Amino acid sequence: MSERTVGILGGGQLGRMLALAGTPLGIRFRFFDPSPDACARDVGALTVGTWDDANALCLFVRGCDAVTFEFENVPTSSLDALESIVRVQPSRLALATSSDRIREKRFFQSCGLAVQPFAEVGSAAELDIAVATVGVPGILKTRTLGYDGKGQRIVRDARAAQSAWESIGAVPCIYEALVPFDREVSIVAARTVVEGAAQFDAYPLGENVHRDGILHTTITPARVSDALALQARDAARTVAEHLNYVGVFAIEFFVADGILIVNEMAPRVHNSGHWTIEGAVTSQFENHIRAVCGLPLGSCAPKLPWNAMLNIVGCVPSPEKILSDPACKLHLYGKAARAGRKTGHINVSAQSERALIESLAQAEQALAHSSC
Amino acid sequence: MSERTVGILGGGQLGRMLALAGTPLGIRFRFFDPSPDACARDVGALTVGTWDDANALCLFVRGCDAVTFEFENVPTSSLDALESIVRVQPSRLALATSSDRIREKRFFQSCGLAVQPFAEVGSAAELDIAVATVGVPGILKTRTLGYDGKGQRIVRDARAAQSAWESIGAVPCIYEALVPFDREVSIVAARTVVEGAAQFDAYPLGENVHRDGILHTTITPARVSDALALQARDAARTVAEHLNYVGVFAIEFFVADGILIVNEMAPRVHNSGHWTIEGAVTSQFENHIRAVCGLPLGSCAPKLPWNAMLNIVGCVPSPEKILSDPACKLHLYGKAARAGRKTGHINVSAQSERALIESLAQAEQALAHSSC
Repeated sequence: MSERTVGILGGGQLGRMLALAGTPLGIRFRFFDPSPDACARDVGALTVGTWDDANALCLFVRGCDAVTFEFENVPTSSLDALESIVRVQPSRLALATSSDRIREKRFFQSCGLAVQPFAEVGSAAELDIAVATVGVPGILKTRTLGYDGKGQRIVRDARAAQSAWESIGAVPCIYEALVPFDREVSIVAARTVVEGAAQFDAYPLGENVHRDGILHTTITPARVSDALALQARDAARTVAEHLNYVGVFAIEFFVADGILIVNEMAPRVHNSGHWTIEGAVTSQFENHIRAVCGLPLGSCAPKLPWNAMLNIVGCVPSPEKILSDPACKLHLYGKAARAGRKTGHINVSAQSERALIESLAQAEQALAHSSC
Repeated sequence: MSERTVGILGGGQLGRMLALAGTPLGIRFRFFDPSPDACARDVGALTVGTWDDANALCLFVRGCDAVTFEFENVPTSSLDALESIVRVQPSRLALATSSDRIREKRFFQSCGLAVQPFAEVGSAAELDIAVATVGVPGILKTRTLGYDGKGQRIVRDARAAQSAWESIGAVPCIYEALVPFDREVSIVAARTVVEGAAQFDAYPLGENVHRDGILHTTITPARVSDALALQARDAARTVAEHLNYVGVFAIEFFVADGILIVNEMAPRVHNSGHWTIEGAVTSQFENHIRAVCGLPLGSCAPKLPWNAMLNIVGCVPSPEKILSDPACKLHLYGKAARAGRKTGHINVSAQSERALIESLAQAEQALAHSSC
């Protein structure tokens, strides 16, 4: 075998964890990122450049056997240039679908999946119609470029809709009904195509708790019925097949009155799948790299029945306390602290739900005692 | 926390796996190696230099918070220079003890451990006395610098002793009785000192099979009595305490007639501990990095009861076949193929001994079908 090289567009923690998982397969990594401090530089060569510099991007991918991304908003013109040189996975179709919330919702509908009521907002007049049709409370989100609760406003009173829209720049938006949900869950799944044959697998459904719009914890398996978990898995398979998807992706759902409502998808490895590093036979990162290299998937089965992930946000803890708890597996991203910024996570595993909840509470405590 | 940097003397697969395990703790790595192709360069900055270039070494360690090694034969003069700048672990004492087979054997004796009969060989006359005292069959080994069966000759007939010695350069040697053993086992253990308090832990005893003097497979736990396994663990603890050891180390034993005979120790992470990457709660690589950074150890407990490692020697397999076996975890080192060279390994885990032996056989088959 000649050694494979994979190029990753984006050099943040996802790129870093992709390289950590892919290096043992004999694969080399390089990263493209606008920041010279991009934390993936510790585990591969970093090219610093801007996303609209098609020239620099083309130089970057020369010699790569495959290219993938952790940053979903690479401009179309740059992708055009890249795809003329090298295989980029996940595909343009997946990127285009997930990067526009309106297009994404319509795609989910075409897959036969339930979505919350929504309307397109391109003008002040459309906003009025949207709020009247969908009702309040609702949530206004930019059609593109939002993440971690950014570019979102809750609208509780129709009269406040216009000022909410102006506060996020009066850019094209989606207005969605605010679903009163019981739980937020997500499925992380993988699909590869080896010699023309597709292979699909999914990790157990995860249950997510957010704080201030940022993922706080994921517990897996989610506390839902087996039927619902299977329905989520089937939804992931349908989405993957419709997009002829290659790589790992995540779909977030709300569970409301026992019904699964699709919220959004991410065409990449996902924060709610970070527990798989120790918790699954094959991590989401390894499976993504396998898929984009055209290799068979590894098993998505969990090693112990219960697994959880606790995000570290806004601070960089000193590791002593966390590491002195034998249940905690620490993952720091090598990023400087900044308010609202994810700088690491802690994984815990257990034989029972009760033991897991206990370990998770201890991890939170250890984190609280780590100057964090 | 300010970010830690660890310098590693040697940039081979051990350094590479140390960095892969330590990076998630927020630690950065740099490597010093005579070869510009050293495979650890994929996961940290590589400085190319010779072991006797104390100047280059001193430049290399400036800015490091801790220094450790995967190459045990760094010249004393270079270590002198390094230790005046930065903490180097494991200690000089451990290095000096393990790098000289005579000194090592005497050290084991001082720890109250059983060793096979041996004698020092510094001259032709001493060789005759050694063979007469210890008897045949015996094994002649260079006192220093031997590994993977290199620098060793078996002596089955006293009359062949002199020519055997000449064939390995007539350098200072040890002559040991060839013990007719039932099994070869090894214990991989870790010791750290945090705020003055020592912490020791050991992985389950591994059972090793060699081929052509190179480790072929490790199966853990070794098929020996609990009493014997405990004895090996106690031996490791005694050795660690006598050396005031910091880091991971391994001790190899023969099991002969139900008795444990110490063969040798390695003051570093060890090939027979590679199964711990997926198989243990905390891998030997992570625990070594924790120890040299003065951090608490993670648990050495296995995740599943049975674990095994199969070395890949002399070839670089194409990964497809190996990865299509869901039980196989592949670790390639990014090294070019060369006869007798370790280029990777495969780990397998199982709930039972029987399932493990089956998985191991499948892994061997997958490897055989991978142009390897």
